Amino acid sequence: MLYQKISDSILARVTEIVGPDNVFIERSQLEKYSHDETEDLIFYPQVAVSPINSEQVSKLMKLCSENMIPLTPRGAGTGLSGGALAVHGGLLVSMEKFNQIIEIDERNLQATVEPGVITEVLMNAAAEKGLFYPVDPSSKGSCFIGGNIAHGSGGPRVVKYGTIREYILNLEIVLPSGEIFWTGANTLKYAAGYNLTQLMIGSEGTLGIITKVVLKLIPQVTQSIVMLASFRTNEEACAAVSSIFMTGVTPSTLEFMERRGVEWVIEYDNFPFDLKPEVGAFLMIELDGDDLTVLMQDAEKVYPVLESHGCLDVLLADTAAQKEAIWRMRRTMPLSVKSNSIYKEEDTVVPRAELSRLIHGIKEIGLRFGFDSICYGHAGDGNLHVNIIKGSMSDEDWNSKLKDGIREIFVLTVSLGGTISGEHGIGLVQKEFMDIKYSEVYMNLLRGIKAVFDPKGILNPGKIF
Amino acid sequence: MLYQKISDSILARVTEIVGPDNVFIERSQLEKYSHDETEDLIFYPQVAVSPINSEQVSKLMKLCSENMIPLTPRGAGTGLSGGALAVHGGLLVSMEKFNQIIEIDERNLQATVEPGVITEVLMNAAAEKGLFYPVDPSSKGSCFIGGNIAHGSGGPRVVKYGTIREYILNLEIVLPSGEIFWTGANTLKYAAGYNLTQLMIGSEGTLGIITKVVLKLIPQVTQSIVMLASFRTNEEACAAVSSIFMTGVTPSTLEFMERRGVEWVIEYDNFPFDLKPEVGAFLMIELDGDDLTVLMQDAEKVYPVLESHGCLDVLLADTAAQKEAIWRMRRTMPLSVKSNSIYKEEDTVVPRAELSRLIHGIKEIGLRFGFDSICYGHAGDGNLHVNIIKGSMSDEDWNSKLKDGIREIFVLTVSLGGTISGEHGIGLVQKEFMDIKYSEVYMNLLRGIKAVFDPKGILNPGKIF
Repeated sequence: MLYQKISDSILARVTEIVGPDNVFIERSQLEKYSHDETEDLIFYPQVAVSPINSEQVSKLMKLCSENMIPLTPRGAGTGLSGGALAVHGGLLVSMEKFNQIIEIDERNLQATVEPGVITEVLMNAAAEKGLFYPVDPSSKGSCFIGGNIAHGSGGPRVVKYGTIREYILNLEIVLPSGEIFWTGANTLKYAAGYNLTQLMIGSEGTLGIITKVVLKLIPQVTQSIVMLASFRTNEEACAAVSSIFMTGVTPSTLEFMERRGVEWVIEYDNFPFDLKPEVGAFLMIELDGDDLTVLMQDAEKVYPVLESHGCLDVLLADTAAQKEAIWRMRRTMPLSVKSNSIYKEEDTVVPRAELSRLIHGIKEIGLRFGFDSICYGHAGDGNLHVNIIKGSMSDEDWNSKLKDGIREIFVLTVSLGGTISGEHGIGLVQKEFMDIKYSEVYMNLLRGIKAVFDPKGILNPGKIF
Repeated sequence: MLYQKISDSILARVTEIVGPDNVFIERSQLEKYSHDETEDLIFYPQVAVSPINSEQVSKLMKLCSENMIPLTPRGAGTGLSGGALAVHGGLLVSMEKFNQIIEIDERNLQATVEPGVITEVLMNAAAEKGLFYPVDPSSKGSCFIGGNIAHGSGGPRVVKYGTIREYILNLEIVLPSGEIFWTGANTLKYAAGYNLTQLMIGSEGTLGIITKVVLKLIPQVTQSIVMLASFRTNEEACAAVSSIFMTGVTPSTLEFMERRGVEWVIEYDNFPFDLKPEVGAFLMIELDGDDLTVLMQDAEKVYPVLESHGCLDVLLADTAAQKEAIWRMRRTMPLSVKSNSIYKEEDTVVPRAELSRLIHGIKEIGLRFGFDSICYGHAGDGNLHVNIIKGSMSDEDWNSKLKDGIREIFVLTVSLGGTISGEHGIGLVQKEFMDIKYSEVYMNLLRGIKAVFDPKGILNPGKIF
């Protein structure tokens, strides 16, 4: 594609559309739009804007389409695959001012929100009305609903409540042509042609910009207990996962944490925890519902399974403070790892009974390629985040040889029936691995769909393909 | 499109591909492929075949693409929107011989099946392993999994368990070009590019033919109770629906039945039931879970809501025989209506708090246009099946004037935030109403996607568009 720069005359039109206060061109202003949470990547857009309504987004899209200017939409910039990076420069459209909760409809258990609403803000607003929005990526305190939709986000509660895919009913979308449309209806069921709502979810801002969202809420859950089970080895902990579900109990959260992740949390977060020397890994198991007796009965069903997989000890948390402590340990882990070393995070996902083979293989590949990794994540979904640590690796190995190791990890993942991203998306950094799983037939369909929505290829170029 | 007939030489190649025993050309053989469950519509294909594997489907698709022969895929033929009708003649591809359950994977709570497996057969096979496949359209005893996927099927349990959309993990697809590919991975999460699995669901056999299915199972539920609540009017019963959810209780089924539907069941099915003269409508409420005490507590939360909406009486069924009787009443209703009169069934869906206004409006429109209707359906999802009864209507009114009435019903549905199909699909018979809700922008996206998958337009032509 032959993209154009933003000329002075186009900049004048951009300014006319969004107003001078919403246009950013100084390097100091652009800095915050130049990176997301993906490794240490930096790409400056030529110009950033923060429009305030769909009509402005529509005019910006039309202008960029007509002038072949690359346009990168951006949520909160918490993404882990580089989806919000303006890799071709051009215009960056920040959705940060689309931050209104338009309505929480208690009669229909629905909410209508703008895409720049912070996930936790929505969760709290729903909770105030006794309702529950369960999709909480670990960045819930800063990420936007719109970004969550663009990435098909998950988080620790997917195992019981499903991904964001099950909560999005209808989306207002602006196409690269500037046309505005709704993808569906505000209904729980929909069988009226191809499901464009579902197609937009996980499309990483490459098909259209989300400007309004209708989503489903569910009744608030009132009770929970959390168990922290310790195991000697990663493999034993992982092997217990699928057995837990075979008891008929579906935990609301089932997280895996490697010993070293816990060590780094203790260090980074000054976290008070008695980490026994024989412990190699943990499972964090949350059960939720409305009846504590039932939860305790469910816990009784889980114990023997843990024991039969060599569990060393189970800590049962039923007070708010105890539960919060365990959650804090899990939630602080990504930041603790990040603060400790340069790292790369890979988002593997397999059928959950294959987890044990996955983590065993990852460690074996690491040994061969000379890299260390810390694994944790949503074991109940078979979704393991692999944090590859630079540590003492040479820059040369880190920047070249490592790729072959990562490729082997994904080859293993795919051979176990999995794929190369469970919830972080492909974005910029994973696209080189798409060929491991996906044929040309598949990729051509994706390219064809992209061309239907964005024939000139101006929207979030350089992502997925 | 300029479609071609199947010449003798092409018929010879078809016969070569599937073998002579799987080719049907006699009118008597073709009869069963000439209709589905949609009204009294009849379209004969020129030739029908029943291939036995993906490779045969691939060769048939390629042959038809190269020769511009319309190809209509067919499941069990239980559809209600004409999706399986060979409206352009040509080749009908029946998937009836794809009837193997390939694997039930108890470690991963997944199953791999062929698309011609009968839904109830899968449910029973899962139940034998203590697992649950909850998507049960009322035709579950005869419909195929493949057809359920093609239509995005629902049924009475969607309200708690979701539509088929939440259970399909991965699909093997044959494209019109003959290319074969898998849409995703066998994982509970997926964020690796546009979600082609979700795009295929509800695409009504217009994008590709499903030849293999990987789906999610959940643990079997062990306890349930069923309540049958009677109300004076349709509006009172419908108004209670959204209030029930506001208690925090999520029923596993919440069905609405109009009095006349029950009368016809009593008559058609020789159903023993004491129908009180003051009763105008029923709600059937099922609660399920693993603890009967909890279910009874939930029922106690529902009672006062029913009362506050003028409920006359609640029958509580907790024995298998009592529950089966109430389910039989609901399940027999479609057949009882069908056997009584020529009818048309419309599949309205709205946000559930709008149900009362919907049914009120439908009756008012019926009065103005001179038609009678019997409404029942999945009230918990806001999904109301409107059975318009020919009764004593003249053929002329039935064939012409009625359309305007149906159009008004859908205009009302859309004005209430709903759409023109909740679970039956667009197929042949609903496409004339698409313009009520969908703009040209939307329709052009659908057409664009169709052209990516099926550039020559040979696959299930005449449907959706």
